[in-house]
Amino acid sequence: MPRNLLATHCTTEHNSAASWLSAPSFLCWSPLLEPLCQCIFLRHEAIVISGTEMAKQIQKEIQQGVESWISLGNRRPHLSIILVGDNPASHTYVRNKIRAASTVGICSEVILKPQTVSQEELLDIVDQLNVDPRVSGILVQLPLPDHVEEQTVCNGITPEKDVDGFHIINIGRLCLDQHSLIPATASAVWEIIKRTGIETFGKNVVVAGRSKNVGMPIAMLLHTDGEHQRPGGIPKLITSDMVKEGATVIDVGINYVQDPVTGKMRLMGDVDFEAVRKKASFITPVPGGVGPMTVAMLLKNTLLAATKSVY
Amino acid sequence: MPRNLLATHCTTEHNSAASWLSAPSFLCWSPLLEPLCQCIFLRHEAIVISGTEMAKQIQKEIQQGVESWISLGNRRPHLSIILVGDNPASHTYVRNKIRAASTVGICSEVILKPQTVSQEELLDIVDQLNVDPRVSGILVQLPLPDHVEEQTVCNGITPEKDVDGFHIINIGRLCLDQHSLIPATASAVWEIIKRTGIETFGKNVVVAGRSKNVGMPIAMLLHTDGEHQRPGGIPKLITSDMVKEGATVIDVGINYVQDPVTGKMRLMGDVDFEAVRKKASFITPVPGGVGPMTVAMLLKNTLLAATKSVY
Repeated sequence: MPRNLLATHCTTEHNSAASWLSAPSFLCWSPLLEPLCQCIFLRHEAIVISGTEMAKQIQKEIQQGVESWISLGNRRPHLSIILVGDNPASHTYVRNKIRAASTVGICSEVILKPQTVSQEELLDIVDQLNVDPRVSGILVQLPLPDHVEEQTVCNGITPEKDVDGFHIINIGRLCLDQHSLIPATASAVWEIIKRTGIETFGKNVVVAGRSKNVGMPIAMLLHTDGEHQRPGGIPKLITSDMVKEGATVIDVGINYVQDPVTGKMRLMGDVDFEAVRKKASFITPVPGGVGPMTVAMLLKNTLLAATKSVY
Repeated sequence: MPRNLLATHCTTEHNSAASWLSAPSFLCWSPLLEPLCQCIFLRHEAIVISGTEMAKQIQKEIQQGVESWISLGNRRPHLSIILVGDNPASHTYVRNKIRAASTVGICSEVILKPQTVSQEELLDIVDQLNVDPRVSGILVQLPLPDHVEEQTVCNGITPEKDVDGFHIINIGRLCLDQHSLIPATASAVWEIIKRTGIETFGKNVVVAGRSKNVGMPIAMLLHTDGEHQRPGGIPKLITSDMVKEGATVIDVGINYVQDPVTGKMRLMGDVDFEAVRKKASFITPVPGGVGPMTVAMLLKNTLLAATKSVY
């Protein structure tokens, strides 16, 4: 993002009023330079975004949401936390969550179990909480002991009460751009970006780390930023200058174009095949590449379905 | 991938025997150079991977799978395809699928409906196929007419019969590294890469296009290549030379390190904060960045769950 755009950002009413942005202490703006070029100014440090301050603002909004929900005659929201063992970090996290819940008027309870608890017992507890109309949200504090499968326990929570957003259905909905309960850390990163006024649409974003509960959902949230399109397919979109020497190029494009010589319609991919093949190490043609393989894989899926090999 | 590695690849028994790899016509290998250095050779063109040939091989494998399934006294796999309207491309695709199914011994049927079919009727058909024990796989040929919501229809298919792999549960399972029916195009790309012997683990992969039915599942398949790890977190992993001038840096790392001066344990993120803040335009600190925001978003999820705003 060029600095001139940033300057515009920082001086908008929205951002200058935001309590979570601390302006760098030695920001220098030369009044002499300003008439010459608005975009030349010196700034040596990033604006530090205070998650603490932004969280206070969001907690205020949640508190208002809770109050108006209750004022309509509804039950107060209730968060049940299952905490296993005595990992000090986990206990600290749970304490913070309970304290914050109480600040915004959300009831909470902690169900404490020893390190030796069985997976079966955890699933039983989850089942009870699933059907308890008093309970709005269920959270299993991770990590669980090695003898318990975290994914099995997380998927035991009914998706509607899965406030950590780790259930298969919540992840699937997130990936497919449907409303879902979003994993809290990913959601935190998203709010930090959006409330600071940073545009991500069309930008390159690097997510360092590919964990399933943090990196992956962040990548998916940013992936679904803005409308996604049915793949258009553009003949020769991928030219040889875009391709690293020795790369493998798999072309999934499907385009019908008129052959300038014969006048007939001809199938083409998205890759400039003749140019790129000179640089790549492996390449798939169109037709005769991904297309027939797709049909084969559909049949394989049918066999997997028939033989009940997945479900 | 360096050329020397490629040379090794191409001469392994597995790959040299593969019928889907066509060696470039003017591959030059100088016998004089060979004793000097095995990795110096000239090659001007990529090896073309024939999806057509690879698909034939896979179809043989499927045919064997079908036969052995039936020989155990099971019903022959059956694929039901719902085709709406008269889009010529869709009709061609469906014809190809039926022909290939018959080749491998899979029964298929096409349920043809006019462009004016209602979403309700489509969902009814899907429901009947869902409970029909004769039917192993259900496929709705896309695109559907504008008055029908594709996602609603695709999610009407029971996940066990969703051979296109577009159901929320199949996508969620794919993203979380669990067995699932994988969308056929993504699966095709995966097989092409793997059967050619190309390593993707630890490599940079560019997926151009971010459609939900092709680009996203391909990215997710490659994302889950190899074991994923609980995020370790490494203090000062992200240094200022990795960060573009003016970038926004959001640090989700959590590390407890001993302060060399005070000897006390101190919380740190993964970013070299003091160095990176001089280059970035926005930055979040640790502590006081993503952490409190995560707690706030958890509470927001609890409120959303209580007010039934998602489900």
